Amino acid sequence: MAVLKVHGNPMSTAATRVLACLIEKGLEFEFVMVDMRSGEHKKEPFLSLNPFGQVPAFEDGDLKLFESRAITQYIAHTYADKGTPLVIPGKEMAIVSVWMEVEAQQYDPAASKLLWELAIKSFLGMQTDPAVVEEYEPKLAKVLDVYEARLSQSKYIGGDCFTLADLHHLPTLNYLMRTPVKKLFDARPKVSAWVADISSRPAWCKVLEMTNPK
Amino acid sequence: MAVLKVHGNPMSTAATRVLACLIEKGLEFEFVMVDMRSGEHKKEPFLSLNPFGQVPAFEDGDLKLFESRAITQYIAHTYADKGTPLVIPGKEMAIVSVWMEVEAQQYDPAASKLLWELAIKSFLGMQTDPAVVEEYEPKLAKVLDVYEARLSQSKYIGGDCFTLADLHHLPTLNYLMRTPVKKLFDARPKVSAWVADISSRPAWCKVLEMTNPK
Repeated sequence: MAVLKVHGNPMSTAATRVLACLIEKGLEFEFVMVDMRSGEHKKEPFLSLNPFGQVPAFEDGDLKLFESRAITQYIAHTYADKGTPLVIPGKEMAIVSVWMEVEAQQYDPAASKLLWELAIKSFLGMQTDPAVVEEYEPKLAKVLDVYEARLSQSKYIGGDCFTLADLHHLPTLNYLMRTPVKKLFDARPKVSAWVADISSRPAWCKVLEMTNPK
Repeated sequence: MAVLKVHGNPMSTAATRVLACLIEKGLEFEFVMVDMRSGEHKKEPFLSLNPFGQVPAFEDGDLKLFESRAITQYIAHTYADKGTPLVIPGKEMAIVSVWMEVEAQQYDPAASKLLWELAIKSFLGMQTDPAVVEEYEPKLAKVLDVYEARLSQSKYIGGDCFTLADLHHLPTLNYLMRTPVKKLFDARPKVSAWVADISSRPAWCKVLEMTNPK
């Protein structure tokens, strides 16, 4: 097997999404650090891996991929027989795909905006814009209302087992649970239990150890 | 075969995305009109089909799906032997998936914002906000620069044949090409030829006939 390579940065939610997938699958890989502070992701040779200049990029031998959710799908399908099955064969996968799209189209736009304002900006010494927080908190709350109903019907967001539909949320959840937005999750018992469950998975704990060394 | 049903509205780019897919596959289906002006999509029974209250929703017998890109993927994989092959078996599909994610994550956020300002708002008698247009035009232009380079290497955005990665663009392209933003496409020869090619596909022409009856 060729060496799998992830080019990324521990700060990036998209990069840790791919790490979580690789560790759930029990796959060995090399992590190639991209120094985003010096703008390495906006220059060659990185632009040849991802013309949009965003981490992560991924290599499996000759195959070069970018966009975190495309990478995780490739890994889950190609290494289906290894580690945690993150996709489901047959018609149930159609439902998992619906909830993968929900994460990408409904949850993530609000979540990413809030984590930028409430977590990343303060890390970078920038000021939070309260108007943006005020606009996006109710949007996230509406999504979490749907999640609360969904998680009353199934243990995980895509169905009865942990899949990519859950995994894709982990990096943004990890940041948001350390901000005042945590209250939106805490107020919804099923959502709150789901967050606790998926955040305590050994693979995700390993991602945190790897990206936040003591 | 159960009757396939699409619940939607001809104005919706997400609904026409699903129609384009069904017609490319040569599948028969029933189109169930959702009256968005009266807010039918925000009430039961529609909310039972999509708890986010957005068109389209889709039914294939007992299976109920929402999120247009999850629906097209289900159709393309389930009816793989019918009509146009919109997905590719094997490793090449990983590349198609990358460009499907590019459409959803890079192209669509800018394209949808611009079509709302420049097409939908005027239709609804609202005023275009020039500041939003000024913010999102350069974002779309950057994406189209990457597309121009990509389309110099391959005939279609996902590879050498027409796939879901191209098809997913059609509804937003259709609106944008009737706005001043058309200039961004016209200025890039490969992009311009690609738009002309995919927009003239018989399946897409049928979608336009169906949704814009004379």
